[in-house]
Amino acid sequence: MKLSELGEDRLLARLLPRFKLNKTVLAGAGDDCAVLRSSRENELILFKTDCVVEGVHFLARDNAAAVGWKAMMRPLSDFAAMSGVPQFALVTLISPSRTPVNKIDNFYRGLRRAAACFGVSIVGGETSSTRGPIVISVSVVGFVEKNRWVSRNGGNAGDDLFVTGRLGRATRGKHLRFVPRIEESRWLTKNFSVHAMMDLSDGLGADLPRLAKASKVGFKIDRKSLPLAPGTTTGNAISDGEDYELLFTIAPRDRKQLEKSWRQKFPRLLLTRIGCISQLSTLNSQLSGGFVHFQ
Amino acid sequence: MKLSELGEDRLLARLLPRFKLNKTVLAGAGDDCAVLRSSRENELILFKTDCVVEGVHFLARDNAAAVGWKAMMRPLSDFAAMSGVPQFALVTLISPSRTPVNKIDNFYRGLRRAAACFGVSIVGGETSSTRGPIVISVSVVGFVEKNRWVSRNGGNAGDDLFVTGRLGRATRGKHLRFVPRIEESRWLTKNFSVHAMMDLSDGLGADLPRLAKASKVGFKIDRKSLPLAPGTTTGNAISDGEDYELLFTIAPRDRKQLEKSWRQKFPRLLLTRIGCISQLSTLNSQLSGGFVHFQ
Repeated sequence: MKLSELGEDRLLARLLPRFKLNKTVLAGAGDDCAVLRSSRENELILFKTDCVVEGVHFLARDNAAAVGWKAMMRPLSDFAAMSGVPQFALVTLISPSRTPVNKIDNFYRGLRRAAACFGVSIVGGETSSTRGPIVISVSVVGFVEKNRWVSRNGGNAGDDLFVTGRLGRATRGKHLRFVPRIEESRWLTKNFSVHAMMDLSDGLGADLPRLAKASKVGFKIDRKSLPLAPGTTTGNAISDGEDYELLFTIAPRDRKQLEKSWRQKFPRLLLTRIGCISQLSTLNSQLSGGFVHFQ
Repeated sequence: MKLSELGEDRLLARLLPRFKLNKTVLAGAGDDCAVLRSSRENELILFKTDCVVEGVHFLARDNAAAVGWKAMMRPLSDFAAMSGVPQFALVTLISPSRTPVNKIDNFYRGLRRAAACFGVSIVGGETSSTRGPIVISVSVVGFVEKNRWVSRNGGNAGDDLFVTGRLGRATRGKHLRFVPRIEESRWLTKNFSVHAMMDLSDGLGADLPRLAKASKVGFKIDRKSLPLAPGTTTGNAISDGEDYELLFTIAPRDRKQLEKSWRQKFPRLLLTRIGCISQLSTLNSQLSGGFVHFQ
């Protein structure tokens, strides 16, 4: 069997149970970040790695600074997903020896700018040559307070389901310019009880079922309510991926207060209730699509 | 200018001063691991990433489990360099979609075995497709006690210069089988005052000048004393790279005790005094070679 026939979810399901975890690991592979016990009583350590590959996550003709920006912001979006604070990053750059140094400089310019947005220190990394496409891999360490850590598995039947921003515009270059929702995510957990949360990297159609599966619940989506980016269809919003918006659930009793406070705090960013969490028995197959790696 | 004309050291020298570091970063890019202040008074956090690229660090025909082993052991060797204890790892696997799943399984088998050797938990990671060569990137977090942290920059004029093991046999497949000198490194800092230390990944001829530069000293090597692996020449020992042995300096007054205790503790592993640290004025150009990336 080849990788393309297996798909990423099944590949991970195959590999993950084999990793022996110890008591200091609260969440491992399969969640947005690894969550590790720290020596500080009230804090957990978050640890995440993510990469961009030329020809997969960016094109050779894309602006190099924008590619560097994206390479840094992707793992930072996973910190947003858990309401974490990123602190330190390592950058691995794998590039053919014929690459102009000017291009490398621009990759790092984008990486540094993105890191600076969230006070992240780039503390090292590595360079290697390759005879293939350029790869930038970024690993990030940070923390989250124990009482503000949100994972994918806390969704309850009856919860309202929200997304930030508009979906489906990744194809229009937004995937190179996005700002992870760290500020929004930190504000949410400071002011509300968020039950389950993740960032939308593979598209609502792939990511929402993951949240539902982790929470052992079903979901009902009102397709008409999906916040579409201009010029995109419901199909784009469900399948395109790389939105890097937050998807989260809260108790319905908090809905009105959330919507009111949100409009005051983030007047320029849409917050939309797209449906609700249901019992597991509800058919989850109403959403199909979402970007699946290796297919 | 192209990357191949610049070389890795000059590339890093170009990029590093641009990274703004804050007070929590004790050592950043350019050292074996990033060293970060921790909330525990007596401990420092170590953070390192390293990758292997098909066609550069391994060949397509190499045993996949051995490649996985190497991918994990490379960053762990940087923990040995600083006398650190590795704890958690993230694995990024970038592979063409045509890759047989059996091969992926074997990569992870090697990664898991290597991690288990040193009690490291693999807590997550990522998979991505590529149209190029396979890449495995591993990031590791761990710690070192403040009073046992050794960097490259503590070498003093007059220090004896030691290496573990034999040099130059990387080309004979050892680079896929090596065991990082973590046990030896931990023993050294528990029992002796090690002034400067690093692991030999790019060859003595490239790495020793880096240690000397960081310590602002010179060095004198007795070429005849170099511990050659069977069938290798002095040239191999200086230039081949991927030895993953320890290179370290201690005060000459500790030499006899070190050599005696070492023979008792590690009877099967050679420890060799290969020269000494000198004033900066001594010509450092007696060693040339060492594997230089991008050339």
